[in-house]
Amino acid sequence: MRSSQAPKPRPRLLHLLLGKPLETKALPHQVVSRPIGLAVFASDALSSTAYATEEILIILALAGTGAVILGISLPIAIAIALLMAIVTISYRQTIYAYPNGGGAYIVARDNLGELPAQIAGAALLTDYILTVAVSISSGVAQITSGFQFLFPYRVELAVGAIAIITLVNLRGVKESGRIFAIPTYFFLGSMFLTLGVGLVRYAAGDLPTVVDVEAVHDGGQALTLFLILRAFSSGCAALTGIEAISNGITAFKEPRSHNAAITLVWMTGLLVAMFLGITFMAHEMHVMPSETETVISQIGRTTFGSHSPFYLMMLVGTALVLLMAANTSYADFPRLAALHAGDGFLPRQLTYRGSRLVFSWGIMGLASCASLLVIVSGARTTSLIPLYAIGVFLSFTLSQAGMVVRLRKIGRLRPGQEVAGRETVMRYDPHWRLKMLISSFGALCTGIVMVVFAVTKFSSGAWFVVLLIPTLVYAFFRIHYHYRDVARLLSLDGVPVDIEKRSIQTVILVDDVHAETVRLVNFAKSLAHPWHAVHIAVNPKKADLIQQKWRNRIGEGEMIIIPSPYRLLAEPLRQYIEELQTKTPGSFVHIIMGHLAMDTFWEQALHQNSAVMFNLALSRMEGVVVTSVPYQIHRNGLAREHAAEARRPH
Amino acid sequence: MRSSQAPKPRPRLLHLLLGKPLETKALPHQVVSRPIGLAVFASDALSSTAYATEEILIILALAGTGAVILGISLPIAIAIALLMAIVTISYRQTIYAYPNGGGAYIVARDNLGELPAQIAGAALLTDYILTVAVSISSGVAQITSGFQFLFPYRVELAVGAIAIITLVNLRGVKESGRIFAIPTYFFLGSMFLTLGVGLVRYAAGDLPTVVDVEAVHDGGQALTLFLILRAFSSGCAALTGIEAISNGITAFKEPRSHNAAITLVWMTGLLVAMFLGITFMAHEMHVMPSETETVISQIGRTTFGSHSPFYLMMLVGTALVLLMAANTSYADFPRLAALHAGDGFLPRQLTYRGSRLVFSWGIMGLASCASLLVIVSGARTTSLIPLYAIGVFLSFTLSQAGMVVRLRKIGRLRPGQEVAGRETVMRYDPHWRLKMLISSFGALCTGIVMVVFAVTKFSSGAWFVVLLIPTLVYAFFRIHYHYRDVARLLSLDGVPVDIEKRSIQTVILVDDVHAETVRLVNFAKSLAHPWHAVHIAVNPKKADLIQQKWRNRIGEGEMIIIPSPYRLLAEPLRQYIEELQTKTPGSFVHIIMGHLAMDTFWEQALHQNSAVMFNLALSRMEGVVVTSVPYQIHRNGLAREHAAEARRPH
Repeated sequence: MRSSQAPKPRPRLLHLLLGKPLETKALPHQVVSRPIGLAVFASDALSSTAYATEEILIILALAGTGAVILGISLPIAIAIALLMAIVTISYRQTIYAYPNGGGAYIVARDNLGELPAQIAGAALLTDYILTVAVSISSGVAQITSGFQFLFPYRVELAVGAIAIITLVNLRGVKESGRIFAIPTYFFLGSMFLTLGVGLVRYAAGDLPTVVDVEAVHDGGQALTLFLILRAFSSGCAALTGIEAISNGITAFKEPRSHNAAITLVWMTGLLVAMFLGITFMAHEMHVMPSETETVISQIGRTTFGSHSPFYLMMLVGTALVLLMAANTSYADFPRLAALHAGDGFLPRQLTYRGSRLVFSWGIMGLASCASLLVIVSGARTTSLIPLYAIGVFLSFTLSQAGMVVRLRKIGRLRPGQEVAGRETVMRYDPHWRLKMLISSFGALCTGIVMVVFAVTKFSSGAWFVVLLIPTLVYAFFRIHYHYRDVARLLSLDGVPVDIEKRSIQTVILVDDVHAETVRLVNFAKSLAHPWHAVHIAVNPKKADLIQQKWRNRIGEGEMIIIPSPYRLLAEPLRQYIEELQTKTPGSFVHIIMGHLAMDTFWEQALHQNSAVMFNLALSRMEGVVVTSVPYQIHRNGLAREHAAEARRPH
Repeated sequence: MRSSQAPKPRPRLLHLLLGKPLETKALPHQVVSRPIGLAVFASDALSSTAYATEEILIILALAGTGAVILGISLPIAIAIALLMAIVTISYRQTIYAYPNGGGAYIVARDNLGELPAQIAGAALLTDYILTVAVSISSGVAQITSGFQFLFPYRVELAVGAIAIITLVNLRGVKESGRIFAIPTYFFLGSMFLTLGVGLVRYAAGDLPTVVDVEAVHDGGQALTLFLILRAFSSGCAALTGIEAISNGITAFKEPRSHNAAITLVWMTGLLVAMFLGITFMAHEMHVMPSETETVISQIGRTTFGSHSPFYLMMLVGTALVLLMAANTSYADFPRLAALHAGDGFLPRQLTYRGSRLVFSWGIMGLASCASLLVIVSGARTTSLIPLYAIGVFLSFTLSQAGMVVRLRKIGRLRPGQEVAGRETVMRYDPHWRLKMLISSFGALCTGIVMVVFAVTKFSSGAWFVVLLIPTLVYAFFRIHYHYRDVARLLSLDGVPVDIEKRSIQTVILVDDVHAETVRLVNFAKSLAHPWHAVHIAVNPKKADLIQQKWRNRIGEGEMIIIPSPYRLLAEPLRQYIEELQTKTPGSFVHIIMGHLAMDTFWEQALHQNSAVMFNLALSRMEGVVVTSVPYQIHRNGLAREHAAEARRPH
């Protein structure tokens, strides 16, 4: 290890935007407390209450907008709340079992094997993207409910919001934690205030009902079990985000598992209370599903009146928490993508940490996909909901199934015995039977919901996800096999390494004869291997002139003109090199070419920059080495020359 | 010159689309006859009759849609026809004076100097782009007049049409001439048939008037001289394209000037007849300017009836000739851009001929700008017209002013005396006074019209062009100074060239130790200069492992670990190189790095490809030479390995 001073990055404009670069050793300190952790990881789950009730009502409205039909939302919401409790109890076990992060990918990989792990990962990655798109779209819908003149700019607002969140996340998780704590608590405060005021007025018997709503049209469908199940599926969007904490355990302060588990229970408690409260209020106030005003906005407007500052506060709070909810995915997507990439199932670039220690490539990838979804769907939450949550339920099921396998292994241990696995240490646990029962029940429930989901929403969009996840898994394995094969080809294991010298033929590629050419010749001569120059004659007249200039100015070494009647550059050179290689097999052909390096991109664009092209064309040839000799053209140099010229007497 | 077989390009998928590559010596044969030349170069001018009358009526309608007010279109059309005759007579002289191409750029450069030439060029380039946008938009409007259900897809249709024309032009001018001859003559036939039938019915006294038109709203403005001049300006769009032939003289068969001049006269004759005919018919039939139906469509529908095949034929003919008119710009824009680039006022890449001998960069540039204009304007001709034709009139004025200067010089010669200029030979001409008078009168007329243009349309869009042209001229000169300065810096004139050998320090950049590394060491060792290896330690744990692998596997040469706590690659290397250079001034530092060359883009994207980045970062350093040693990873190789493995007993 060299002892010299570690090089620091130069200050740049980008650092103003992203914050100054962080050293790698700063990494472990980037952890959050429970209240901040709740804000970072729970905003997704909590904010889904902003659209879950609405999506249930929209499906039920297909059969009619009467109070009886829409009232079915209440039992549906209770069923969903029960499901939330089951999943939470089950995931609490996972958090304690996997203190280093117990996302579905890790649990499945540890207990079920590579294929289920990749399926779980693909499902989660897909859903993280959808979380961003759905949350942002719903957040924008809250704002346009209050400010109708913004309605035509939904897509622009949504894409702008994604850009801002992306920027915040490129700065790093601690800052985003702080930034996002305020809106999450602001939302919780305003929402419980609204529900509280509503409940008091309900108890006092003066709860008003919603007026002035442009309700969606009655779809005229029959109220079948299928439709009720479809409404239930839509409402299950409220469960997305419950898994976020288990993926992000390492972001918590020590004792991690304990802090994460407590945060999970807090979160589910708040979630169930809000979801049931909103659904109850929506029913009692006769909220109508509408395309231009959200359920939340109708409840707030009816509770406080459309000119009340409390109504506005609640809308803004909901919008902010939704926009911020997308941040959960920004914490989890890049982390999970880096896990996949580390195992060789995604491009390795996803494991690189940027100057602020975040996985910049993952963040940018998430932002691009989510923006695309928002644009394609026209920022309509209802268009995205059918794609949503299948992935989450698939990963719920696989994760809990993994826990079942793990607990069965633990049950086979002797009391006190410890076995080190890939991720954790397994210790005998006297309660393994109960825990296994909980995980099995959880896996069964979420598995059934997932199938209900895929069936009831297949034709309205779920088919896309049903096709996408296997495609992704296929791609992941293709990538994996590629890396494995390359590693095998490059491996030196068992290969005797004996490095013999080979002869080198140096070929200078000459475009014109000027100061840059002199440097090329200088380098070639310094190398002291046999050398000659070559010119690809696209323009025969120019070729003669160059030949002549070479003789007059350089005056040493041979220069060969290669005709190119089809005005190609790489192809004639390739043929020439092949001839050289035939004459002297086993030698390196060393191509030396110039590169005019300009100070700015615009100046660079004015020059041919053929080096990149040659590099590309010649890199396919065995035994050909390409050297680029830069020649610097400095604007300052030019400026100095101008000044000198101006002083010179004319 | 090497005698070996000239390398032919390999057959590729692209050649199916663009035709097989052509040799440079095939260039002079790509010329056209008079009838084909008329089709190629006159379609712009002739097709402008499809919108010129309409644009006059749209402006007049601002003051009312009564027969008296719209009737002012007749004297306006006659004034424009006179202007056409003046410009044609004046340009005929230019064609004979400049048989190698007498575009405004060349005439201005030859007689007025560099700045007027650049102004003329910038004006023409701007207008060529507008010609494409206006013609395509108007062509699509003809089609949507007949097929109203296509109206919402105007922009898509227009962009699609630009794509097709671009493709045809990338194939080369002769093919495009042939393809475009048919629609031009089809248009001429159908238009004269329509006007002929109309005239016969007018003479017989049974000319019907237009019914069922959704006319534009009466703007309620006063009929001022300003408004009439504005209508005149809009109608002057009919003159655009007259200059096309003088730019393209070299595309004609010998005797070039004679053929080009005759074609010019044919063209103007047809243009005047059609423009006056359409304006007269529009007046007699009480055509109303409308947003959804063009004037041409109204005339055709009224003459033949809306279900007549002749009406349809006329619409399709007009649309085709308009779409094809854009082709004039595809012939002239790249040629003019190449002229600028050859003089060093535009990027040099514009002078390169592609595999089909056309200026591919210019064609692509034109297509991109025109598509952008069509998208921004929503493919509405009327939105583009205020930007249009200023450039053409500016270049008309400069070109004719140049001819005046030239003719005065000719007048000063003795009879029989010849003087060789940059472009042509000047001979004494007894008629120089008359010719100079014609050119002066032409320059005066077009100059006045240009001012009228800029003033009357300034606020509705002309301001953009008034700002754009000086901006372009400024950019042209910036580019020119850049090339001049670089050439001066690179020049060897008067510099004594003495190439001394310098010492070389070879540094191998090691990312990991495997088969690729062995090749790097092999090359470095073969070079036989002092060498050592360097590893940038982004991950300290990995660095120790690599150090150890190096000792075990390579076993020779020193390897230095450079810590990089900020996870940067280029910056620490740069600092290290600076230290080396301080220790041994005047030596080359030769950086050798590996490059895994994959068969496909997708495989390549899975690897770090840091070579490009290093090249960029190090190219700014004086005396640093970067060598990329490719290591080929072949899919076939992998496949063979797999097969071998499969055969191996497990």
